[in-house]
Amino acid sequence: MNVIVARRTRHYRTVWFDARKNAVRLIEQRLLPHRFEIIATPDFRATSRAIREMIVRGAGAIGATAAYGLAQGARAFRGRNREKFSRHVEAVFQTLKAARPTAVDPVNAMTEVRQTLSAGAAVEEQQALALAAAEEFANRNVRHCEAIGQHGAPLIREGMRILTHCNAGWLAFVDMGTATAPLYAAQAQRKKFHVFCNETRPRSQGATLTAWELAQQNISHEIIADNTAGHLMQKGEIDLVIVGSDRTLGRSGEVTNKIGTYTLAVLAQRHNLPFYVAIPLSTIDWELPAGREIPIEERDQSEVLGAWGTVASSGTGVSSRRFGERVYVRVANPASSARNPAFDVTPPELIAGLITPAGIIKPTELWTHRRKLGWKA
Amino acid sequence: MNVIVARRTRHYRTVWFDARKNAVRLIEQRLLPHRFEIIATPDFRATSRAIREMIVRGAGAIGATAAYGLAQGARAFRGRNREKFSRHVEAVFQTLKAARPTAVDPVNAMTEVRQTLSAGAAVEEQQALALAAAEEFANRNVRHCEAIGQHGAPLIREGMRILTHCNAGWLAFVDMGTATAPLYAAQAQRKKFHVFCNETRPRSQGATLTAWELAQQNISHEIIADNTAGHLMQKGEIDLVIVGSDRTLGRSGEVTNKIGTYTLAVLAQRHNLPFYVAIPLSTIDWELPAGREIPIEERDQSEVLGAWGTVASSGTGVSSRRFGERVYVRVANPASSARNPAFDVTPPELIAGLITPAGIIKPTELWTHRRKLGWKA
Repeated sequence: MNVIVARRTRHYRTVWFDARKNAVRLIEQRLLPHRFEIIATPDFRATSRAIREMIVRGAGAIGATAAYGLAQGARAFRGRNREKFSRHVEAVFQTLKAARPTAVDPVNAMTEVRQTLSAGAAVEEQQALALAAAEEFANRNVRHCEAIGQHGAPLIREGMRILTHCNAGWLAFVDMGTATAPLYAAQAQRKKFHVFCNETRPRSQGATLTAWELAQQNISHEIIADNTAGHLMQKGEIDLVIVGSDRTLGRSGEVTNKIGTYTLAVLAQRHNLPFYVAIPLSTIDWELPAGREIPIEERDQSEVLGAWGTVASSGTGVSSRRFGERVYVRVANPASSARNPAFDVTPPELIAGLITPAGIIKPTELWTHRRKLGWKA
Repeated sequence: MNVIVARRTRHYRTVWFDARKNAVRLIEQRLLPHRFEIIATPDFRATSRAIREMIVRGAGAIGATAAYGLAQGARAFRGRNREKFSRHVEAVFQTLKAARPTAVDPVNAMTEVRQTLSAGAAVEEQQALALAAAEEFANRNVRHCEAIGQHGAPLIREGMRILTHCNAGWLAFVDMGTATAPLYAAQAQRKKFHVFCNETRPRSQGATLTAWELAQQNISHEIIADNTAGHLMQKGEIDLVIVGSDRTLGRSGEVTNKIGTYTLAVLAQRHNLPFYVAIPLSTIDWELPAGREIPIEERDQSEVLGAWGTVASSGTGVSSRRFGERVYVRVANPASSARNPAFDVTPPELIAGLITPAGIIKPTELWTHRRKLGWKA
């Protein structure tokens, strides 16, 4: 089996910018947790490919990557013609946007960069403003996650056992993460606690990414099959649940998140356990009136019918050089098919509170607090 | 990928006896769903190995296998000395019992065979009685499952969508199964319905064995990740839940079954869906007063941290001869550990009814009906 070649002994962000080489630097997330590798994308086309091929994934992380990619493309322009520069920036924008056409974060991030640079006079000035705006986007993402950590940390008391689902960690953002931010903040306050990571089938982001993050941060944790959470709650072995959110409805307080989140919320209610959702402001949807209108993405059946991993042993005795090889195995009956909805919707009555950068808010009170949460009329 | 080499076009039991060759015949369950193979164990030692190595698994199936194994051992005895024969039978009994020392079904089955044969006079007569008793045990197992099917089938109405968990199918018994028996009986009554098979991590018996069984029987079905059941219930896409049971407490009405069963029961209650448990009489425990006293087996971490399957594709491009090879892949972060409790306990208030060979009974009324359910004072 491959081993981690670099522990996070120095502090890495998920994505950052190398101004000298005009390159975006990224953690190659597709290799995690079996290999830790940092890559550099030398131009905006390579940055666009990194987003498309999911070398980088997660709302905040791809937003920052796109912002850096736009600055990178702008800075690569040679000449002083402002009109040509403007057309070039637009082409870069469209290329990066096309990498993940349904994602909203890259568009929001790049719009911000474009607005800022357009205030500059000379091309050179606009290039400098573009990078400054991208850095500001990434830094604000970190500050928001840090604020979520500060607001959420008081929920974690000494000795608690905390359950989380999927990966809403620093890998999905620029740093800190959302659901993980209170954990990291509590750790900085020297609190001791234990985390159960739901495996999170079918893509297993809990067993791979979240467990890897927590191991890097030296946080006590164990992976469980998703079937196990209810049993542990029944035995009194879980004290608190914190998850992330892909889309939160500002009008109804409903939370869309990775499939299985709703089940955890129902179980938490039965056991009178606090169920919190950590949300970055960018995931609040102020338009949709009700969760039933959220389109639920049905992903490829192969995710449910099998699993990706590294070959660790064999029923038939394989040669040793195959061990550690990354393969997809079919687990399920070959003649059967699967359903694979990627998200579910949790109603506000099951949620104790939303941990936002602006504080902990009841989901039904989002609309009341909309002005401080970034709503624009 | 391997293909099924024999569909169940003729009717197979999970285990049966070849009197001419004095051999037990079994479906090699470890190869399912990727290959269908029937093996013969030529003597009682081979039969014992088949139980120990889980070529055959499931309460009813290993009970019948042990019963046949005892008859097989008895019939292999040459001579007329009744005392020597008796010692030989005892040695066979102990060998078969040791194959799965904690299972109760093989012991109950063999005790019945031994009692029956001891009524015979000559060795030859006792040998004949042993086989008759083993056949009677297997046939009664089938009759009980058929009775579960007859009592359960009326719960299934035309067009229903039924959720099941793990494998309590014919592979786990001699035929028909318990949770699956109402499905097969309803199919025989020409009802149309659809089954969702919970994948059932970590061992994936739903995705492998139950899906394979349903495919063999041409029953419409789809596999889902365990995280998906709650979402489908919320969308109104599930009408009924039927699961099996490993141990049901006759005094309290609590049901021990595969991890994840409790979660389904909680979800079913929230959605006002009927949650039924199909139980063979042999799983009723008349002694233990409360579910909290049931020891919950913690199995090996590797089950949670990875998966067995057949290699279907590779990230790096493997040579084609590796495809179809059966391997274990490590999915989870290499530096992380896991918890793996195998069972959970569902309280009676979440259970609409127990489908028993003697009819559908409220879990809290087991004790009242104990005489017709096989309780012995």
